[in-house]
Amino acid sequence: MNVDLSVYLVTDARLAAAAGHDLVELVEAAARNGVTAVQVREKDAPARAFLETVLRTAEALPSEVALLVNDRVDVFLAARDAGARVAGVHVGQSDLPVTAVRRLVGPDAVIGLSVSTPEQLRLAAASPARVGYVGIGAVHATATKKDAPEPLGLARFASLVAESGLPAVGIGGVTSADLPAMRSAGAAGAAIVSAICSAPDPASAARELRAAWSAAS
Amino acid sequence: MNVDLSVYLVTDARLAAAAGHDLVELVEAAARNGVTAVQVREKDAPARAFLETVLRTAEALPSEVALLVNDRVDVFLAARDAGARVAGVHVGQSDLPVTAVRRLVGPDAVIGLSVSTPEQLRLAAASPARVGYVGIGAVHATATKKDAPEPLGLARFASLVAESGLPAVGIGGVTSADLPAMRSAGAAGAAIVSAICSAPDPASAARELRAAWSAAS
Repeated sequence: MNVDLSVYLVTDARLAAAAGHDLVELVEAAARNGVTAVQVREKDAPARAFLETVLRTAEALPSEVALLVNDRVDVFLAARDAGARVAGVHVGQSDLPVTAVRRLVGPDAVIGLSVSTPEQLRLAAASPARVGYVGIGAVHATATKKDAPEPLGLARFASLVAESGLPAVGIGGVTSADLPAMRSAGAAGAAIVSAICSAPDPASAARELRAAWSAAS
Repeated sequence: MNVDLSVYLVTDARLAAAAGHDLVELVEAAARNGVTAVQVREKDAPARAFLETVLRTAEALPSEVALLVNDRVDVFLAARDAGARVAGVHVGQSDLPVTAVRRLVGPDAVIGLSVSTPEQLRLAAASPARVGYVGIGAVHATATKKDAPEPLGLARFASLVAESGLPAVGIGGVTSADLPAMRSAGAAGAAIVSAICSAPDPASAARELRAAWSAAS
């Protein structure tokens, strides 16, 4: 999988709106200031609006920043059919099974999967669907994802990363202060929601996260 | 399009649960007692549960009863990939555009589209996506669809059916009392939600609707 997940922005339209940001402008500013991958997540928007956001985001992103679509494989496929540069999809344990997703997206798209237990991690690594990376969380408690499991904390996160045979990103209340511990635990990256979407200055927040990741090792 | 839409059940899991029914048992009972087509609509369920409901429903339905999937083209595709007998998808004006849907589902699947204005009707009939039928509504006010437009009433419904170049079903608070007027207006069928999902005896409700449709002309 040829995607740099190190500073991985996961969008939250409500948080962005509450902070006064246009979502696509926020994503573009973050991507030009250190974000390396973007997942468009729209838990409430109808499919047409979701597709339009994906298409606008794809146009706005620098070519080296990968764009993934949360949950809706049909939105990903429609965006790809429309010529948008979309790298793949990210699904959770309640979304379509990764084997079904792989049949739908074809061999080259990236599939990311959310996991929160050693068993889910084992299934992800063993799946014939070729899961490209796992999102492990929630690292911390968070209000941005209603169905998030109990927070793991950084120590438990690190032990799951160590067990993972797949590239792993941590998600859930992650701030720049967590990045040194996450990177030294072997994570491929940190998935960021509110630390960018709710930031007064998303570009500055992205720079700070990028710097924190780069300084760690 | 080779689908009998005359008594077309659109599922509502909340109404069915509130009336004490297992959704798949309800659908099967209705289909064995006069329902000719079924649309599985799950506005709240995650994709995996939606797919499971579609697969279970497909197994339970008599082969002559067409099964359509609401909104989620990916769920339809995954069900078809899994070998389920699914006829097509039904989308609304906020869902994926029908041209995108046609590219995703291929040439043979049925595409149904919800419309509520003459302009939407014209666009549906003119679309290169080959819309198979339109759902025109809301015929009456209804609490089962939060985003339903202002009710049309039977007279306005009849005038839209007359303008439609496509097979049309009426939806929105439809009961057996409406079926004579709807059929004589030229409708291809009646889409039924609460008159079956909330019925104490869905099989009996289906028989009554079937009889009302058959008696009209």
